[in-house]
Amino acid sequence: MRINEERLRQRMDRINAIAVTEEEGMMRLALSDADREARDLLVSWMEEAGMSVRIDDMGTVYGVMKGTDEKALPICVGSHMDTQPNGGKYDGFFGVMAGLEAILSIKESGLELDSDLILADWTNEEGARFVPPMLASGVNAGVFDPQWVYDREDTEGVRYEDELKRIGYQGEKENRLTKAKAYLEPHIEQGPVLDAKGLSCGIVTGALGITGLDITISGEANHAGTTPMSHRKDALVAAAEAISRIRKNCIDFGEPAVITNGIINAQPASKNIVPGTVYFSIDLRYHTDEGMAELEQQTKDIIQKTCDEFGVSVQIEQYWRAKPAVFNETIVGCVEEAANEKNLPAMRIISGAGHDAVFISEIIPTGMIFVPSIKGMSHCPQENTKWEDLVAGTELTADVLVKLDKETI
Amino acid sequence: MRINEERLRQRMDRINAIAVTEEEGMMRLALSDADREARDLLVSWMEEAGMSVRIDDMGTVYGVMKGTDEKALPICVGSHMDTQPNGGKYDGFFGVMAGLEAILSIKESGLELDSDLILADWTNEEGARFVPPMLASGVNAGVFDPQWVYDREDTEGVRYEDELKRIGYQGEKENRLTKAKAYLEPHIEQGPVLDAKGLSCGIVTGALGITGLDITISGEANHAGTTPMSHRKDALVAAAEAISRIRKNCIDFGEPAVITNGIINAQPASKNIVPGTVYFSIDLRYHTDEGMAELEQQTKDIIQKTCDEFGVSVQIEQYWRAKPAVFNETIVGCVEEAANEKNLPAMRIISGAGHDAVFISEIIPTGMIFVPSIKGMSHCPQENTKWEDLVAGTELTADVLVKLDKETI
Repeated sequence: MRINEERLRQRMDRINAIAVTEEEGMMRLALSDADREARDLLVSWMEEAGMSVRIDDMGTVYGVMKGTDEKALPICVGSHMDTQPNGGKYDGFFGVMAGLEAILSIKESGLELDSDLILADWTNEEGARFVPPMLASGVNAGVFDPQWVYDREDTEGVRYEDELKRIGYQGEKENRLTKAKAYLEPHIEQGPVLDAKGLSCGIVTGALGITGLDITISGEANHAGTTPMSHRKDALVAAAEAISRIRKNCIDFGEPAVITNGIINAQPASKNIVPGTVYFSIDLRYHTDEGMAELEQQTKDIIQKTCDEFGVSVQIEQYWRAKPAVFNETIVGCVEEAANEKNLPAMRIISGAGHDAVFISEIIPTGMIFVPSIKGMSHCPQENTKWEDLVAGTELTADVLVKLDKETI
Repeated sequence: MRINEERLRQRMDRINAIAVTEEEGMMRLALSDADREARDLLVSWMEEAGMSVRIDDMGTVYGVMKGTDEKALPICVGSHMDTQPNGGKYDGFFGVMAGLEAILSIKESGLELDSDLILADWTNEEGARFVPPMLASGVNAGVFDPQWVYDREDTEGVRYEDELKRIGYQGEKENRLTKAKAYLEPHIEQGPVLDAKGLSCGIVTGALGITGLDITISGEANHAGTTPMSHRKDALVAAAEAISRIRKNCIDFGEPAVITNGIINAQPASKNIVPGTVYFSIDLRYHTDEGMAELEQQTKDIIQKTCDEFGVSVQIEQYWRAKPAVFNETIVGCVEEAANEKNLPAMRIISGAGHDAVFISEIIPTGMIFVPSIKGMSHCPQENTKWEDLVAGTELTADVLVKLDKETI
């Protein structure tokens, strides 16, 4: 399916010109004035194309292009338009614009689909303004309580619901996306794999589950000069050894397992005092529930054993748990088939990041399309994707929507 | 030499009652009102004993008990009365009070010594209020420039010299201790060795040198989910491996080598971002110059090699260098002989901590006596030494002063 490249480029440039940082990053925080301006433009383009627009109670915007069969379930495509502070031009935003352009191109091609095609712009995917991420899609999937989301505050103490009202995007609960034949989310990879392999497209089969652990090791703070090595209970050397060992274990466990220790600090944090306490975080990801549980247990056991060896004690607490997502095989198959038909260099890939699609997959058959991120950079002004890959991803989105309309799911 | 136990106890209790924290720690910061009150009491006790009192330009207080030989060089004993915030009852303070009690006991015994006996209370040994430590003894030894010390400021921006004037303890440069036959410093060990071995006395042969290094490892910050293990340049896993390896190397290097990584942090310090930069500190100590240089080079080489393996870069900067101190063998011999004569369970030991004696040893033949620290605790309210060990240490101090008077050094 050919798309209107020039329209896609002009519309992306138009919204990406709304709120630009000094480093040429995007600053379209959820429910900000910039977000409102982007929404207003999106709504105007939907209406101009003859789509009917509805807003749900979380502020998610849906544009509906009518199909020919009243009884057919709708097919939804979308992503989010909010950004990180000083974020990139494509994270989320590409999915919304690719979805819009795909729907318009299908209509303009003269093809008539049975299903309604719905374009969705989910509110607050980033979690940059209101924590945690994916608030609107989480409510839509029944994961979050809507009142709890309304009461989320940004760092200034401003409530989600109050901002939703202020920018004029508080709609009705009845408008949520509760039933659909399929949900498809085009997105940038935000990782280095496709770019490093020189591929144009990722056929996303699911998303890694996440286990977050807080590790606190307690030894004995002591004088750096007067305490012989043999008399020490150094919390940091135990932590360092544990970090080395759990990393090796994770690599041996095999891809796509990843482990990250993003935060570490030692107390009392004096150059001439042996650390008595060390805290570090663990972010552990895997693509199956059983594997995740096994990897988590191995990781905990290694830490416990290491601390025993060093004569220090350890507390391990789980601060986060997100189940792996497994996408619908029929939808994944449609993406793969469409990529093959276009001769797009592609591979099956598992998403390491969270996406609205992860929550939506709990209630609606879901799939995703990845386009490459140059050097894997994201959440920064350097985030980039070749224009031809964005065009190919948009065309692929249109092709997949047409296939999904014909497919039984 | 028998001492007046009751007088020693009462005087220690009197000064230790001046500024007590909620946790029963000492709060006698250098040149504070509490320090002035302690100095005023010390001066009154010196004068009461017939000692002449002089103050030098750094605020160090000297009490002189005249000897019989005008031509004999004086013998000095002392330590410091300032404490850490919420510090212990004996660190430094024991040495001053043991010196005073020893001098009084010698006089009261009827013994007449050739040399003048001088008691010194060095200003700002702790470095807790004015950084770095051992400012007055450092000026006395020619290590620090006096004007630079005068301009040191505490965290409130108050200058050393202004506080010295305010509490009325700014004396004359001419009063510094420039020439003496010997300097002896009794002190608590501040380490666990004597207590663990059940000994009453440490015959201190010198002090460890210190090399302080700042290590900054730079890799690449990346998304914790989307970056496969094989694509990472994780600064923290390189740091963790380096910390493990340099510790093993230090243990293999052999006692008394010690290595401490007191501070560590990772940037950007987010649980779901692979650390792009990690800083950690190294405090490395050894008792010989050559060994210290060798250990430092080995440590740097291991870090560089580890970082090369992990594909990250590293910057190593030296923030501190203190030469090892080797005490005068005649004085060390006098301490050993006196301990043997008293049947005190004792051992030769190297100080891991810095002391005024370390600087003074650069210009005057120096020795130290350690009394045990229970469980090695220091710089905290739990710092403690058995009363009988304090008494034995004070008696030993008197015995050593008498021996030093007879000895040719």
